Amino acid sequence: MISSAPGKVIIFGEHAVVYKRRALASAINLRCYVKAEKKDDIEIISEYGKTGLDFRVHPFISQSIVNFKEVTDFKGVRVEVRSKIPPASGLGSSAAVTVATLTALNELFSTSLTKDEIFELARKVELDVQGKGSGTDPFISTFGGAWIFPERKKVNPKFTRLFVYDTKKRSITAEMVAGVAERREIFPEVFERIFDAIDAITLEGADLFEKGEVEKLEKLFFINQKLLSAIGVSTPEIDSLVAELERRGVFAKITGAGGGGCLISLKPFEGAFEVKINEEGARVEDFEDWRFFDN
Amino acid sequence: MISSAPGKVIIFGEHAVVYKRRALASAINLRCYVKAEKKDDIEIISEYGKTGLDFRVHPFISQSIVNFKEVTDFKGVRVEVRSKIPPASGLGSSAAVTVATLTALNELFSTSLTKDEIFELARKVELDVQGKGSGTDPFISTFGGAWIFPERKKVNPKFTRLFVYDTKKRSITAEMVAGVAERREIFPEVFERIFDAIDAITLEGADLFEKGEVEKLEKLFFINQKLLSAIGVSTPEIDSLVAELERRGVFAKITGAGGGGCLISLKPFEGAFEVKINEEGARVEDFEDWRFFDN
Repeated sequence: MISSAPGKVIIFGEHAVVYKRRALASAINLRCYVKAEKKDDIEIISEYGKTGLDFRVHPFISQSIVNFKEVTDFKGVRVEVRSKIPPASGLGSSAAVTVATLTALNELFSTSLTKDEIFELARKVELDVQGKGSGTDPFISTFGGAWIFPERKKVNPKFTRLFVYDTKKRSITAEMVAGVAERREIFPEVFERIFDAIDAITLEGADLFEKGEVEKLEKLFFINQKLLSAIGVSTPEIDSLVAELERRGVFAKITGAGGGGCLISLKPFEGAFEVKINEEGARVEDFEDWRFFDN
Repeated sequence: MISSAPGKVIIFGEHAVVYKRRALASAINLRCYVKAEKKDDIEIISEYGKTGLDFRVHPFISQSIVNFKEVTDFKGVRVEVRSKIPPASGLGSSAAVTVATLTALNELFSTSLTKDEIFELARKVELDVQGKGSGTDPFISTFGGAWIFPERKKVNPKFTRLFVYDTKKRSITAEMVAGVAERREIFPEVFERIFDAIDAITLEGADLFEKGEVEKLEKLFFINQKLLSAIGVSTPEIDSLVAELERRGVFAKITGAGGGGCLISLKPFEGAFEVKINEEGARVEDFEDWRFFDN
């Protein structure tokens, strides 16, 4: 039995959302697949190795299994993970593996949890592992689609192509969020006004996605990237790359915590891969082995 | 008889000041010198050539002479200009030549105008030549010092070194201001909030100059530059240069209209020259020939 859950992309509003402003985020067509089988003990297999319950190598999967035992008691399980979502790149791979695991366990043990219940479980796993979390990633990974947060207002984009470029430099969310908090402490008034500007970008951007106005959206990508740079979550390397892309008429912005991770744009450019947004949430797949995944 | 008037540098708040936010600007030690002598006709000599009244080659000097005739009638004058201020770079060379000319004429014809009256005359020359103008440049060039505009609140900086880098690309104020207006028209809410952030930077920055807190000021240079880039008055070339300087621990920002012109920083870097801020305004020099200038 194989289940899957999508990764996510933050299109506008990262960081500002930590300060009660809005963000626009969407499920993407990169998914994490989990195959679950009944077994006498617990076995977790992923690209990071084969372990039992292991909160260092497989924190989200281990925590999902432990928390699921409160839903129904079971002896053991074999969970095998294959993910198309690059890890630590701001694309929600942790939430996706969590939601996919819970969805698979729900199916395997016939516990008939609703999506709302799976989301609440995934939300708790996020908190148990990280100590904190906005719940955005588990929400998107469970329900799919594109949304304005924190309101959870559904957005219906007229076009769904986005290009993602992985800087291959790890983006460590906790560190980046702490850095913004530190700088905001020094210049609170300046930062609050920048967050206000980002909030305005999110609202305007969601509207333009619904209208399908690509050119105007590109201008917002441009502005949002400069504001992310202003609050210190870009890097000189990313700024240089963004400037180089601008010369070629491509407007890219950081997605997620920054300091590395991924850039997104509305136009293709060298090294970027295409993703679809507004994709389906968690689901049980109708195939039983990995053939689909490998294709 | 030689008079002089200083150029100016906008330290924070350019463009936002057009939208009723505040800016911090200061007189600098780059000055424009004007030697005036009585003569039967009008002769203007500068690096642009020798002319009579000529509103194309010498618009500000010609207009200054014409307007000064309303103060006192005179037959003619020979005005020779030597300026240390790079033209069309946002350093106030036009206002400086205007104020220096009016100061020289005031001395030559013993008309005993006060500084306030010279400022008003210079203000009118700016409007006559350009059709519009905020009056900031003539004000600083006349009175010297560092000020918050539009309030004209005096600032007393604890340190006065600034480094200026000339991109050698012309900065055409009218074009840059029009570009911002156009983009603001598309995203008014976003732009207003960015102007609010810049306003906060100006106030905070003036305070830090008075306290002499260089490190914090550098962070504001960094942020203000990103916000200028956000409103579209940087260029990919300037963004790349700024990113390269960041890698070396130097934080530079555009000063003035942008799109070219000059960058300023608090630390020296290759190609940048040092200026002093909080310098004296217009004055009659105590030397009679160009020996001082050439040294």
